[in-house]
Amino acid sequence: MKPVVITNVPRADAAAIATLQRLGVSTTHEAMGRSGLMKPYMRPIYPGAAIAGSAVTVLAQPGDNWMIHVAIEQVKPGDILVVACTADNTDGMFGDLLATSLKARGGLGLVIDAGVRDVRTLTEMGFPVWSRAISAKGTVKATLGSVNVPVVCAGALVHPGDAIVADDDGIVVVPRREAAAVAEAGATREANEEEKRRRLAAGELGLDMYKMREGLAKAGLVYRDHDDT
Amino acid sequence: MKPVVITNVPRADAAAIATLQRLGVSTTHEAMGRSGLMKPYMRPIYPGAAIAGSAVTVLAQPGDNWMIHVAIEQVKPGDILVVACTADNTDGMFGDLLATSLKARGGLGLVIDAGVRDVRTLTEMGFPVWSRAISAKGTVKATLGSVNVPVVCAGALVHPGDAIVADDDGIVVVPRREAAAVAEAGATREANEEEKRRRLAAGELGLDMYKMREGLAKAGLVYRDHDDT
Amino acid sequence: MKPVVITNVPRADAAAIATLQRLGVSTTHEAMGRSGLMKPYMRPIYPGAAIAGSAVTVLAQPGDNWMIHVAIEQVKPGDILVVACTADNTDGMFGDLLATSLKARGGLGLVIDAGVRDVRTLTEMGFPVWSRAISAKGTVKATLGSVNVPVVCAGALVHPGDAIVADDDGIVVVPRREAAAVAEAGATREANEEEKRRRLAAGELGLDMYKMREGLAKAGLVYRDHDDT
Amino acid sequence: MKPVVITNVPRADAAAIATLQRLGVSTTHEAMGRSGLMKPYMRPIYPGAAIAGSAVTVLAQPGDNWMIHVAIEQVKPGDILVVACTADNTDGMFGDLLATSLKARGGLGLVIDAGVRDVRTLTEMGFPVWSRAISAKGTVKATLGSVNVPVVCAGALVHPGDAIVADDDGIVVVPRREAAAVAEAGATREANEEEKRRRLAAGELGLDMYKMREGLAKAGLVYRDHDDT
Amino acid sequence: MKPVVITNVPRADAAAIATLQRLGVSTTHEAMGRSGLMKPYMRPIYPGAAIAGSAVTVLAQPGDNWMIHVAIEQVKPGDILVVACTADNTDGMFGDLLATSLKARGGLGLVIDAGVRDVRTLTEMGFPVWSRAISAKGTVKATLGSVNVPVVCAGALVHPGDAIVADDDGIVVVPRREAAAVAEAGATREANEEEKRRRLAAGELGLDMYKMREGLAKAGLVYRDHDDT
Amino acid sequence: MKPVVITNVPRADAAAIATLQRLGVSTTHEAMGRSGLMKPYMRPIYPGAAIAGSAVTVLAQPGDNWMIHVAIEQVKPGDILVVACTADNTDGMFGDLLATSLKARGGLGLVIDAGVRDVRTLTEMGFPVWSRAISAKGTVKATLGSVNVPVVCAGALVHPGDAIVADDDGIVVVPRREAAAVAEAGATREANEEEKRRRLAAGELGLDMYKMREGLAKAGLVYRDHDDT
Repeated sequence: MKPVVITNVPRADAAAIATLQRLGVSTTHEAMGRSGLMKPYMRPIYPGAAIAGSAVTVLAQPGDNWMIHVAIEQVKPGDILVVACTADNTDGMFGDLLATSLKARGGLGLVIDAGVRDVRTLTEMGFPVWSRAISAKGTVKATLGSVNVPVVCAGALVHPGDAIVADDDGIVVVPRREAAAVAEAGATREANEEEKRRRLAAGELGLDMYKMREGLAKAGLVYRDHDDT
Repeated sequence: MKPVVITNVPRADAAAIATLQRLGVSTTHEAMGRSGLMKPYMRPIYPGAAIAGSAVTVLAQPGDNWMIHVAIEQVKPGDILVVACTADNTDGMFGDLLATSLKARGGLGLVIDAGVRDVRTLTEMGFPVWSRAISAKGTVKATLGSVNVPVVCAGALVHPGDAIVADDDGIVVVPRREAAAVAEAGATREANEEEKRRRLAAGELGLDMYKMREGLAKAGLVYRDHDDT
Repeated sequence: MKPVVITNVPRADAAAIATLQRLGVSTTHEAMGRSGLMKPYMRPIYPGAAIAGSAVTVLAQPGDNWMIHVAIEQVKPGDILVVACTADNTDGMFGDLLATSLKARGGLGLVIDAGVRDVRTLTEMGFPVWSRAISAKGTVKATLGSVNVPVVCAGALVHPGDAIVADDDGIVVVPRREAAAVAEAGATREANEEEKRRRLAAGELGLDMYKMREGLAKAGLVYRDHDDT
Repeated sequence: MKPVVITNVPRADAAAIATLQRLGVSTTHEAMGRSGLMKPYMRPIYPGAAIAGSAVTVLAQPGDNWMIHVAIEQVKPGDILVVACTADNTDGMFGDLLATSLKARGGLGLVIDAGVRDVRTLTEMGFPVWSRAISAKGTVKATLGSVNVPVVCAGALVHPGDAIVADDDGIVVVPRREAAAVAEAGATREANEEEKRRRLAAGELGLDMYKMREGLAKAGLVYRDHDDT
Repeated sequence: MKPVVITNVPRADAAAIATLQRLGVSTTHEAMGRSGLMKPYMRPIYPGAAIAGSAVTVLAQPGDNWMIHVAIEQVKPGDILVVACTADNTDGMFGDLLATSLKARGGLGLVIDAGVRDVRTLTEMGFPVWSRAISAKGTVKATLGSVNVPVVCAGALVHPGDAIVADDDGIVVVPRREAAAVAEAGATREANEEEKRRRLAAGELGLDMYKMREGLAKAGLVYRDHDDT
Repeated sequence: MKPVVITNVPRADAAAIATLQRLGVSTTHEAMGRSGLMKPYMRPIYPGAAIAGSAVTVLAQPGDNWMIHVAIEQVKPGDILVVACTADNTDGMFGDLLATSLKARGGLGLVIDAGVRDVRTLTEMGFPVWSRAISAKGTVKATLGSVNVPVVCAGALVHPGDAIVADDDGIVVVPRREAAAVAEAGATREANEEEKRRRLAAGELGLDMYKMREGLAKAGLVYRDHDDT
């Protein structure tokens, strides 16, 4: 693949993104038919952060953050930087200087399938990062990669402009053109959950509420009293 | 193994459980002769939680949480749900709706050798979970497992009704019939530690307090001054 | 290697250590030419701790903490205990009693390529630990190791008396004789960063500030508009 | 748990063991209702070995092989030694001298949730070992464990005298009293597979042979031609 | 994502595939500009296998091989089955019966980001499999997935009909439309390597053959004699 | 650390190396007092290789093999190349062309804490490699490292000129100046083992041969008959 930077990438719909942020990762992932999720080794550097935005993607060489500098120029307000590596790596490819620059461009946060450093400062800045590792390991600026090409990040396919939703549960990728439909499906799902939560809190069993007893019996589930075993 | 739900399982002694909760995981584990511990990859979703209760066990298919719904019906106040999988898995098999239901039944918390989701809501609910992973990955309800059979969870054998102690140090399993004896041994150990802590804080060396010097010399330990090396 | 305890090891320069603590791990690591870092699986038991001191080293058998008792006698105020194992191990080799003793001797904290326990108490004591794992697993006192010999801890070579810097980004080892030079180089680097941070916060791009555009073009980077792809 | 050696443990039925060896691990595991399997990180040191026998169990301290010497005295012809550790460990707890001794006692092989060494010699001896790791790391003889107590080895519960089946697919544990029934169920399953293999080899589809089409359609599976997508 | 089976997917060019098989994984990967590689945890079940073919893709639920049965109907001679899971899993989703069926349809081999079993029989059949694990763990047939949709398998994006090249070095994916161009670039690269191999075997240094000395000196590399250090 | 190549490094004694090769890794490691071993994740690319030689060390950037080309010029007949990375990495930094060059210089083999490729050709060449991974992932030549400086490789400290022993059990590092003493100690140990092997093969128990019964009893080991439990 030849190194390239793709400019003027279309973004996901802003209203859909706002809805997805409110819904959060788990509900969005369900609304997509349980797809689009990054692997669970990706963790936020501090609890409580919850963002949604359009992806600016980076494909980088392990241990080399040259292309992150290139990518920041492509960031517009509301974007999230998504960095994939050509091989598994935990080096600290991003720190407080890059965060300062990314924030100044209107970037909302970073998703990186590698390491991050200066996490104390990033936490104080309130700049959220989801990463594979925290590592002070310094990186070089020697080899080209690409910006705004499709990448596989933490097991998920990300196209530039896709909607990214990230919170304490992880990160989910919503294809740009599906963002509005997913937001709508998620909102419907959310509405249904409130009623379920109320009934469960009142002591109703999921077995009854979801009408599972017949299916379980049909599948062959049997009950035995402990004293009979 | 045929799918089965065992009902009316005897619980561990309530007074013993109360003592074990106060002692915590590390002291309980020592009082058991250093056995019964789950593997250290099991971590709490938020710091500071510390619970003890009787185990309701679940054996589930990876990525399938049908049996958790079945298990909740078997939960009584003071119980802890312990979920093992038939294969390593990190899917988010438990979230805020199940927690609402489990809490309504009097369940104290969850120990799951798989993933959990909605961790922000669970934290706000003060509902403690120890898990192998945090993951939004949705699960199916398609295959039977068992409830209240002996399971191996995170490397530890758990029988239904065993006492479970969980805190920031991990999770330890106390066989139901040994709970009272372990609680007593742990309480004795705890009493001894207070005196040791006072002496160590005053500057006394463990080498002297535990009378280790003779054993070390006998084993062949030698001291050399840095300047002589 | 015969078991041995080396006494009266020279310490790193106190003024240099004070500077290194202020600089933190990432800046110190860069000032050393990007070397000396421990592997990123080493994590602090609570966020926010940041210490620097001279290393008292321990080489221990997995699951055996006898030599930690021996090492504490060698600790002087301002020291950091650094424990390596002869094989990968996660057992809880250190807890609140050892921390009480180490603190009473003036020890600042612990770096251990194994497990630690009683983390709630250690957190309340404000006694920082960087470890590979948190585990209640108890250990034996049966086999000799060595104190104040060179060890490989979490992938980094540590000589007794080396300066150790530890914070949320990890742990870096500075050879004793290089501590002053590294502190000076780090302070220079830090001064430069402030100006960079200001410019980046004002919206200047790293591409321009670091004059990267020419190098990128020379390396062959091309830009293409999305509509042309 | 107090250190103990249990003597004169009853063995699994010899005829059942012979059948299980012929059936192999995968068929035995299916015949047990898909239970009893050790984790897949356990691998044979050379391909092609396939054994079945009665378990003599060992619970050992990590890095300490004292109890393996103790256990060998308890081995009778046709037994398999099963070694569990109290914590994850990869040290080379077993080598050619122990294998010589175990073989002289009639032991068929070793299953160890830790490391093994001298693998070249063991291969030349034709002495099969399934282990978590290959490691030359030497061990101590300092701390007691137990022999012929129930252990959790690589995630599976093993009672002394249980039937162990091990081949290139892994290791499965058959409870002693169920060995004959499992052998019979496995033999039936095996007979059915031959006919299936013949039909599949002739080009018949599993979809048809297992009559899956209706179930798939009912579950909602749809087919679309590539040109219509 | 709705479960779907896409039929009549176009295949990669047969002549290009034949060339790619001869070139092997490493040369093909280089010819693609170092992209398209699956993660190195994917290993062949026996050494020496080397195949190339068109991908029939499967997206399966962890621990559920229903869709593999569905996919086999879509296989044509020269195809390779590529199975991805919706979550990390090592269960033995494929064994000798499925291999018999797949082989009868003309399938060349299997690439599966999960486990495989019956590896002794598969080896005797000469049916090559690249997998994440070997495991006897049986699977269910309960939940739909998809066939011939784009999947991320072991970190690489695979479209149905892409060329798959697999050998002892791993697996590389060549987009269907690029197969001919990559084959040509690889063949050119291969021709150049023969001359290089001859010169290096004769003792010429890579430093000279690749004219690296100037670049190294310019980058700042210095040589020092050991006696001067 | 400034990039540097140290030339004319003294080698370990040739006679000692010859003895160490015959003794193999496990015996050498024991003769060193159980130290010097690399981590067990390092595995040979084919079974049966067993070499010993003097180390030429390389410290490389992850994913960059420039310094391996530099190092080959420093190799003399009987040397083993030992490659460490500044961060964990599995890229295929070494293949058949480099092996051809290294072999032409008299190099005996490679130990690399990263990946290797072209393993089929390397196997056919009989060129042994111990690595962390097999991966076709191509590398760049962009960033300097060092040659013949002390490195930590797979957890072991290696100085240039140290003796390296590698076989199916792993890799052990013998400090250059200790090679003769270790070889002598190992030869003595080897002589003792032959007699032990003979006695164990004749059925004598290790419990008796090593006179362990008294120590075990003193430590508190008890025997109980199964029928009494």
